[in-house]
Amino acid sequence: MSYPQTNFDKTTFHGPSILKSRQAVVGLVTAKAQLKQLRETGRYDCFKLQWHPIYDDQSQWPASKSLFWDSDVGKWIEGVCYLLATEYDAELDAAVRELVDMIRSAQQDDGYLNVYFTVVEPDKRWSNIRDQHELYNAGHLIEAALAHRRYYKNDLLIEPIEKYVRLIRSVFGPGEHQKHAYPGHPEIELALLRLYSATGNQDAYDLAQYFIEERGNPTGQDGMLYYDWEEKQRGDNKYKRPDAYPVTRSHWYNQAHAPILKQESVEGHSVRAMYLLTAVADLVYHDVGGKSYAQSTQYLAALDRLWNNMVDKKMYVTGGIGAMHQWEGFGIDYFLPQSTDEGGCYSETCASIGVMMLAERLLHLDLHSRYSDIMELQLYNAVMTAMNLEGTAFTYVNQLGSSEKDKSARETWFECSCCPPNLMRLYGSLGGYLWDHGASSEGAFINVHLYTTAQVKFDVGGQKVQLAQKSNWPWEGKIEFELDSNAKVDIRLRLPAWSEGAYILEPPLSDAKVDNGYLLLPSSYTSHSKQFSLDIQGFEPRHISPHPYTNQNTLTLARGPIIYCVEDADNEWESDHFRNTVISADSPVAEFEREIAGERYIELRSSGWTRDLDSWKGKQSGSEPGAKNSSGVLGDEKELVFVPYYLRANRGGKGHMRVGLLKQ
Amino acid sequence: MSYPQTNFDKTTFHGPSILKSRQAVVGLVTAKAQLKQLRETGRYDCFKLQWHPIYDDQSQWPASKSLFWDSDVGKWIEGVCYLLATEYDAELDAAVRELVDMIRSAQQDDGYLNVYFTVVEPDKRWSNIRDQHELYNAGHLIEAALAHRRYYKNDLLIEPIEKYVRLIRSVFGPGEHQKHAYPGHPEIELALLRLYSATGNQDAYDLAQYFIEERGNPTGQDGMLYYDWEEKQRGDNKYKRPDAYPVTRSHWYNQAHAPILKQESVEGHSVRAMYLLTAVADLVYHDVGGKSYAQSTQYLAALDRLWNNMVDKKMYVTGGIGAMHQWEGFGIDYFLPQSTDEGGCYSETCASIGVMMLAERLLHLDLHSRYSDIMELQLYNAVMTAMNLEGTAFTYVNQLGSSEKDKSARETWFECSCCPPNLMRLYGSLGGYLWDHGASSEGAFINVHLYTTAQVKFDVGGQKVQLAQKSNWPWEGKIEFELDSNAKVDIRLRLPAWSEGAYILEPPLSDAKVDNGYLLLPSSYTSHSKQFSLDIQGFEPRHISPHPYTNQNTLTLARGPIIYCVEDADNEWESDHFRNTVISADSPVAEFEREIAGERYIELRSSGWTRDLDSWKGKQSGSEPGAKNSSGVLGDEKELVFVPYYLRANRGGKGHMRVGLLKQ
Repeated sequence: MSYPQTNFDKTTFHGPSILKSRQAVVGLVTAKAQLKQLRETGRYDCFKLQWHPIYDDQSQWPASKSLFWDSDVGKWIEGVCYLLATEYDAELDAAVRELVDMIRSAQQDDGYLNVYFTVVEPDKRWSNIRDQHELYNAGHLIEAALAHRRYYKNDLLIEPIEKYVRLIRSVFGPGEHQKHAYPGHPEIELALLRLYSATGNQDAYDLAQYFIEERGNPTGQDGMLYYDWEEKQRGDNKYKRPDAYPVTRSHWYNQAHAPILKQESVEGHSVRAMYLLTAVADLVYHDVGGKSYAQSTQYLAALDRLWNNMVDKKMYVTGGIGAMHQWEGFGIDYFLPQSTDEGGCYSETCASIGVMMLAERLLHLDLHSRYSDIMELQLYNAVMTAMNLEGTAFTYVNQLGSSEKDKSARETWFECSCCPPNLMRLYGSLGGYLWDHGASSEGAFINVHLYTTAQVKFDVGGQKVQLAQKSNWPWEGKIEFELDSNAKVDIRLRLPAWSEGAYILEPPLSDAKVDNGYLLLPSSYTSHSKQFSLDIQGFEPRHISPHPYTNQNTLTLARGPIIYCVEDADNEWESDHFRNTVISADSPVAEFEREIAGERYIELRSSGWTRDLDSWKGKQSGSEPGAKNSSGVLGDEKELVFVPYYLRANRGGKGHMRVGLLKQ
Repeated sequence: MSYPQTNFDKTTFHGPSILKSRQAVVGLVTAKAQLKQLRETGRYDCFKLQWHPIYDDQSQWPASKSLFWDSDVGKWIEGVCYLLATEYDAELDAAVRELVDMIRSAQQDDGYLNVYFTVVEPDKRWSNIRDQHELYNAGHLIEAALAHRRYYKNDLLIEPIEKYVRLIRSVFGPGEHQKHAYPGHPEIELALLRLYSATGNQDAYDLAQYFIEERGNPTGQDGMLYYDWEEKQRGDNKYKRPDAYPVTRSHWYNQAHAPILKQESVEGHSVRAMYLLTAVADLVYHDVGGKSYAQSTQYLAALDRLWNNMVDKKMYVTGGIGAMHQWEGFGIDYFLPQSTDEGGCYSETCASIGVMMLAERLLHLDLHSRYSDIMELQLYNAVMTAMNLEGTAFTYVNQLGSSEKDKSARETWFECSCCPPNLMRLYGSLGGYLWDHGASSEGAFINVHLYTTAQVKFDVGGQKVQLAQKSNWPWEGKIEFELDSNAKVDIRLRLPAWSEGAYILEPPLSDAKVDNGYLLLPSSYTSHSKQFSLDIQGFEPRHISPHPYTNQNTLTLARGPIIYCVEDADNEWESDHFRNTVISADSPVAEFEREIAGERYIELRSSGWTRDLDSWKGKQSGSEPGAKNSSGVLGDEKELVFVPYYLRANRGGKGHMRVGLLKQ
């Protein structure tokens, strides 16, 4: 079983690239900046189980302000364990060791391991599985323990965590005295499956399977949906509900409105949905005792249905998902406004990381560029835009358009700070997302999903396989490969959809086969052509649009995998968030090489206009001006400067930014 | 003080018109159909204070299913009392008499008069002013009593109601032991001001003023907002909230998020907002003891601000208000999707009736066609579309576009059945909306807001004034007037904005003055030209559009005050709710005279296309086809038949309908 989290250090970023820069800054700066935040906020010491003033603040229900602290620490440990494998740092190492000691000391005799429900409300354990994140926190501790064990090669963290898993296994399950529950915030499922893969812990596998299969059972506990049942146990009225529940019984928020197999569309909190489906994909992928998962076919169909619904109808051009602020999640089909003043746009960083995780799993089940294209779209756009170049400031929400209420701006930390450590985890294990590799019937295979400058090295049947790629991706399409192996190696290379399948392979391969968006270089080719190059075409700037049903009559500039935006930092005349900026697909687009913080990028320039809405002043909807020209009279043509969306909010300015501009 | 509810029968619809037809069908059919519903559902007998099975159903909180029954009965009585004044009917008369007997018998010794809180939860009186509609029900009983007293010329209903008002006055107010509260659903304020006008009941005036001024006071009761205070008294947690509250403390739902004077935009439940502002306008208008209301200037500014926000940014081209289903009210500025599948559209019938009521009050404060244009827009479109031609079936929600989830269809009744009797009240008192009239310094004035065929008759200083208008409005712009009076009469005639001020007056008036959209015919003109005609221009079909910020790139056909739609009844090829139907403002539009149920109307025909989205199949947002043509390739040109929006859902079909079509 291969995971990015276990495979990543078979890959080395051996030359300059954006990805290498990001990983380096996360290791050198971000990990330490976040450590400082952990210390200053009280998270670092929370496993000492002492009282912290934040516990006095019970103004937020059901998630009190410290409820996720365990997971913040867990994600930081996990991320650092990946980063240490690439670049050792004594301060980070010492902090991990101390945190692990504290976590060990915090475990209760029966195995329970949760700060809030040990210190603050010890009598409320497992009383609100829907909202109170005990299982979510446990999941992140499991992932931390796996990363810790892998790097430190000891059991100091995995040992108490496995004890905790045993306790959880005893509490949840189909037994008469067990809770027939499943986590409000999925996460532990994917962690448990990775634990099973790493250690063979059968409890972990069984529990993950149970959580997935029991989810949304309308009559699971005493004839009721579990969340309704436990609400009744707590003495809560159905009208008492978290702010994320717009109306009573909005269980779709937690993807618990129906069993997964009966879910027709992707709904609710987008991070929860992505973590859950990642686990489902992993469950389908697992062999247990040589037998594949019994319900693979049905769950595969559900994955396909929900993935397609998301990608076709609920995803922004940046890859972002989740239009709705209130539940941090999906709106109805095609409801994809760009900004708060248009009706919303959430596009949480963690959700896009979740899409990458899900896409990575799906690529194992069904090698198809439709997954890896989306994985790359997320990485370079919705994910990469969430951290500044210095690695010190973040966005939680990644809107496509700013507004006076929500400017394009960054924060160093958040009260609910899931996104910054998630970026650490992702960049720390990034090498694992580039390619999938392993043994084939005749030798080895490597499926190359992402292009950059990197090399991967692994063994197959005692034989070394090493493949290096070198490129100026994402700016240029030419990738030079060098294979070093005596084994027979099949290599598959992704051809992005935007390239329309156009490429030049050197040396050429007659009768080249392209399957599901991957060009196959069979071992017959690779054994003779150890050096070859792929030149992917289609790097001309292009205009893209969201689906017409979005009612977004906009154009966005894209180039290769990069989505562009306009910012007032370059377009200083702008004072209204580019809400009235109009462009035309007929305008020529010029490219300029630029550098920022030692990193190369391509700036685009084109012309545009400003929509003049003067004729609408004081007119009610339905007044006449609309009939004559709903775009208003256009002003003088002016030059517009476009930069990659991932660069936004790095260069000062007033926080005005937009991805989709009105279509002329 | 003049109100449509008191003035209406000075007006007679003396010749055929749509308005006369509606009023007639309401009197002949609707009132009886609704009486049948009142009897069958249990509402008719509810004031007998006997147990009804519906009371056992406590599944809905905070508004149990029968909570509004008092108001349904009250509105029916009110409407019937208007209709009886126009056309006597023995069955209706007998029912009113019986209902009044039952209401009298239901009053408690202390004056309390509410079915639910007498029969079902007698210990919960006044415990949830925010949600439980006691004051709302009281308001409708007051309005019923006023209409009853006016028609029957006895005190059988007003007497117990005034007793109830005395009780309410003792419960609510600034005194130490009084509740510093204000109704969750405003309505009683406008009723109390009318009661004061009719009877001089000072309690009524004071209470209305108190409710308006206290509203939204953040520290009104024990330093808290009243609704928060009473929630605490009930032992409710702030997270326990009605389904209409998307998050905790969504007090904007009830327009209680801030004092009215500090409200910057119109928010929340649209009917509540309209009833509240109608009362505010009436309070501003009132003289008490010869003194005008002390805070008139500030409240006038608030009315202006909130009206403009609504009309400029939160109103559909049909006049409909309220985009949001969840709270039956306003969304953010410019959020005006047409249909459920675009993100919502509510446009409740009662809300549009409320806009008419508010506009009518504002015309007394500030005679300006911007109010009467909107009043007419509502009447012929958002309001008139809510009842079928037979007067037997209704819409509660008046979307601009249907969808598979919400087809364009009618119901005979609703569980919460506010809209059908509201239509009765409106059509019953419709004559009062046509014009405003009274004494001027020199004689009399008549401000003509709406054109139709009707005459008004009143006395000024003992002199009879009679004005008749005759027209084919809303189909033709020529109105023939005949004044019959020896008094000096100034007449002002509205020039609708869509006419762009173009008119022909016969006999002509040199140096004619147009003020705020009204053409003034001074007594010097009317005393010589007793017969004159006004021919308002601009009846050519025109294309209108909502404000560009709505992201609705649509065109709607309008002609005079009539907004058109397309229906599958005429356009039988349609199978997708006209979601992909494209029209162009350049296409010629032909007119055809049609008749339905003896009523004339003008059908429009123009050509259109169907947007072809085949290229988008299975493509995620941001795929290439959008760039090439976001409207998709258009199919063959075909003829489209347009009918007035008020005619929709009258002629069978599959319930596919749309007002705004894609703009080519």
